[in-house]
Amino acid sequence: MANIIKKTAPTLIFIFGGSGDLNHRKLTPALYNLYVDGFLNDKFSIVGLGRSAYSDKKFRDHLLEGIKQFSRRPDDGKGPWKEFQEHVSYLQMDAGTESEYALLDKKIKETEKAWGEKPSVLFYLSVAPNLFPVIAKGVATIPAAHDEQNARIVIEKPFGHDLQSALELNALLAGLFKEDQIYRIDHYLGKETVQNILALRFANTLFEPIWNNKYIDHVQITAAETVGVEDRGGYYETSGALRDMIQNHILQVLCMVAMEAPVSFEANEIRNKKTDVLKALRRYTKDEVKENAVRGQYGAGWMKGEQVHSYREEKNVAPNSNIDTYAAVKFHIDNWRWQGVPFYVRTGKYLQDKTTMITIHFKQAPKYAFPPEAVDAWRPNRLTLTIQPQNDVRLLFQAKHPGQTMSLDPVEMVF
Amino acid sequence: MANIIKKTAPTLIFIFGGSGDLNHRKLTPALYNLYVDGFLNDKFSIVGLGRSAYSDKKFRDHLLEGIKQFSRRPDDGKGPWKEFQEHVSYLQMDAGTESEYALLDKKIKETEKAWGEKPSVLFYLSVAPNLFPVIAKGVATIPAAHDEQNARIVIEKPFGHDLQSALELNALLAGLFKEDQIYRIDHYLGKETVQNILALRFANTLFEPIWNNKYIDHVQITAAETVGVEDRGGYYETSGALRDMIQNHILQVLCMVAMEAPVSFEANEIRNKKTDVLKALRRYTKDEVKENAVRGQYGAGWMKGEQVHSYREEKNVAPNSNIDTYAAVKFHIDNWRWQGVPFYVRTGKYLQDKTTMITIHFKQAPKYAFPPEAVDAWRPNRLTLTIQPQNDVRLLFQAKHPGQTMSLDPVEMVF
Repeated sequence: MANIIKKTAPTLIFIFGGSGDLNHRKLTPALYNLYVDGFLNDKFSIVGLGRSAYSDKKFRDHLLEGIKQFSRRPDDGKGPWKEFQEHVSYLQMDAGTESEYALLDKKIKETEKAWGEKPSVLFYLSVAPNLFPVIAKGVATIPAAHDEQNARIVIEKPFGHDLQSALELNALLAGLFKEDQIYRIDHYLGKETVQNILALRFANTLFEPIWNNKYIDHVQITAAETVGVEDRGGYYETSGALRDMIQNHILQVLCMVAMEAPVSFEANEIRNKKTDVLKALRRYTKDEVKENAVRGQYGAGWMKGEQVHSYREEKNVAPNSNIDTYAAVKFHIDNWRWQGVPFYVRTGKYLQDKTTMITIHFKQAPKYAFPPEAVDAWRPNRLTLTIQPQNDVRLLFQAKHPGQTMSLDPVEMVF
Repeated sequence: MANIIKKTAPTLIFIFGGSGDLNHRKLTPALYNLYVDGFLNDKFSIVGLGRSAYSDKKFRDHLLEGIKQFSRRPDDGKGPWKEFQEHVSYLQMDAGTESEYALLDKKIKETEKAWGEKPSVLFYLSVAPNLFPVIAKGVATIPAAHDEQNARIVIEKPFGHDLQSALELNALLAGLFKEDQIYRIDHYLGKETVQNILALRFANTLFEPIWNNKYIDHVQITAAETVGVEDRGGYYETSGALRDMIQNHILQVLCMVAMEAPVSFEANEIRNKKTDVLKALRRYTKDEVKENAVRGQYGAGWMKGEQVHSYREEKNVAPNSNIDTYAAVKFHIDNWRWQGVPFYVRTGKYLQDKTTMITIHFKQAPKYAFPPEAVDAWRPNRLTLTIQPQNDVRLLFQAKHPGQTMSLDPVEMVF
C-alpha cells in the first residue's frame, strides 16, 4: 500500500464554541489523531474561543478528558498528548460583540510573526445555529479572513431549519466570503465513508454493471440509534429526526449510492454528481408526503433493561411536543438509472441497534430452471454496506446445499 | 431446507471389475453413503463380477477395507455397514466368454422372484477400456438388458482414445442398446459440482449480467495433482494428461462455466446446452495447436520432502515414453457471449497443490477517477470457485484502506 502522508500547511484553527460538546467529543480527538499519524505540520495552533473564563491549562485538561472518553486512541496525558497540548490554547471572547474580533486579528498577526510565514486560518463555528450570522459578520471584520487562499470558514449543521432560512444563511455568507472559503460541514460524514462507498462502486467491475434499475429492486438506508435525545432536548426540539438526520446525513449517503461515476475524486466533481441526484429526487405534493413518509415519537418504555422516559418527558422538551424522533421516507430518483427503484430511508432514536447501513436489494433471479424444492428457501441477492459501528461489506447469495437434493440456501460472504 | 429424499426403485447393480480399484475406492463407498442417507430402496443388491474366486465374505471384507480407507464416513464394520453388506455379493465369471452371461440372466430372474417385482438393472463397466466392446456384446445377450425402462449400461471413461475409436465404440453401443440406456460416466464430475456451478450462476442476479465478454477478461481452470502416476503407469501410458483430464473433466467444467442458461435442470437440457459450448469451441489447425497448447512430462526431483522418480522411471512406463503428465490449452469459444475471452486450462501431476479450481478474471475497472496512489495495489475482480479439495467461493474486490489516503487494496470475501 502506498501510504503517502501529505502534511498540512502551517495552520491556525479558531474553534468557536471551544468548550462545547462537539469540540470535546469529536473535533479535538480528530485533530489529535491527525497529529499522531503525522499529518499535521509542526506549525499548527488550536485556539478555543468562548465566553467562559478558562486558563490554557484548564482548557487542555478539559479536552484531555474528551480524548480519554471518546477517542479511539485514549491517551492518559503522558503519550503524544503531552506534546500535542502545547499547540492548544484558549481565548476568552464574546462572539456577539463585534469589537472583540480584533483579538483574533491580533492572534493571527502574532502567529505569522512567530512562524515566520503566513498561516492558513480556519474559523470553525461549532455553535448553536442562531449564532452563525453574528459570528460570520464578526469574522468578516478580520482582514485575514478575506485571504481567499488561506482563510476558511466552517459551519456545522444544521444549515438553516427550512428552505427559506437555509437560503437566507447562504445569502448572508455569500455576501461576506467567497464560495470557495465556505465549508458547510457535517462531522458525521467523513471522507472515509464517502470514499469507501465510491471505491466499492467504481473500483470493481463487479458492481457497476448491475448498479441500476435493471438489477436492483430497492435500496434501504438505515441510521438507527439506541439512545434517546439525552441532554440535547433543547436542540432536538428545533430539529427532530427528519431535520437532524435525513435532510443531511441520509441524503448524502443516498447521493453516494445513487450518483453517476465521477470523472475524478475532486471535491467539485463529487459535489456536482451528488447534486445531479438531488435534482432527480421526486418532489412530493402535500398529499404524496402522506403516502411516502411517516413520523413517530418515542414513548416511555424499556431500553436494554433500563426504564426510559417518553420524549415529551425529556429535559427541555415541551410536554405536548410534536417533534419526530423517528422518520422514514420512500424516495424516488427519476432518472435513467433509478426510475422505478424506491429508496427507503429511516432513522430514529431508541431503536434496537446502533447502526448505519445501506442495503442494496437485487431483483429475484428467474426461478424457472430450478425444481420447486430448490427455491424453497432462497432469497434475492443482497449487498449490505455497514458504515457504523464499523465498516463492512456483506454479500448474500444462493449456493447449493450439499447433498443429493437440489436445495439452495442463502449464504453470506463478509469482508 | 426442504430435504426431500427420493428413494431409488428396487435395483440390482452388476459391477464388472468388482474387485478392482475403482469399486473399492469410489463406487461402493458412494453407494454406502446413499444407503446411510436413506436414498436406497430396501430392495437393492450389489453384485461384484470378476474372474478371481472370492467368497461373498471375502469380497465384503475387501470392500469394507475401502470404506475404512477412502470413505468420508469410515465404518469399522459394526455401523450401518453390518446391514449394508447383506446386500452385497460376488459372482465369479469370465466376462470374455459370452455363455457366462447366462449367470447374470439367472440372477436377474432370481431377484425378480425374491422381490416380487421387476428390478431396475445396472450393468456398470468398471474395467479396462479394451473390455468395453466384449462386455457390451455379452450384456446384449441378456433379454432383460433390452428393457428400455429398467436396464442401463454404464461405461467409465476413457470413452475411446481418439475421435476414431470413440466413434467406433459409440457405433457399437448404439447398435446394441437405446441411447437412453447408455450412460457414459465420469466419476470425477458428481452432480454436486455441476449443480453448484449452475446454482451460483443462475440463482443469483449478481453474476449472470456480468458473465460475458463485456466484463470477463479471461477464465482459468486448473486441475492440479500432487501425486505422480503411482501404480497406474500401464493405464497412463495409453492416455496422458490431455486424454486423462482435459478432454473429459476439464471440458465438462468449461462447459458448465460457459453454457447458456438452461430452461430446466433436466439432464437432456443441460447436455444440450453443454453441447452448444463444445460446438462453439474453436478448432485449431496443426500450426495453431503449437501456439495454443503445451505438453510436459515430469522429471525426477523432490516432492514435499520426498525424492521421486521421473515419469520414465515409473513402473510400466516405457523408458523413452513421450506421454504428457502436464498439459495446458488456451481455448476460445466463438459465440456471442465469449468471443475474445480466452479459457486457459491446465492439469498435471506432481504439482504444488491438489486442487481443482475455476477462476473468473474480470476486466479492470476504469482507473481514470482515482488518484494515482489509489490504484497502486489494486487488482481486477476475481471470482474463484474451488471444487476440490472442498467447495468454496471466493470473491476478490477492491476496498479502501482505512486512513487519510485514498489507497485501495484488494480484499477477499469467502463463502
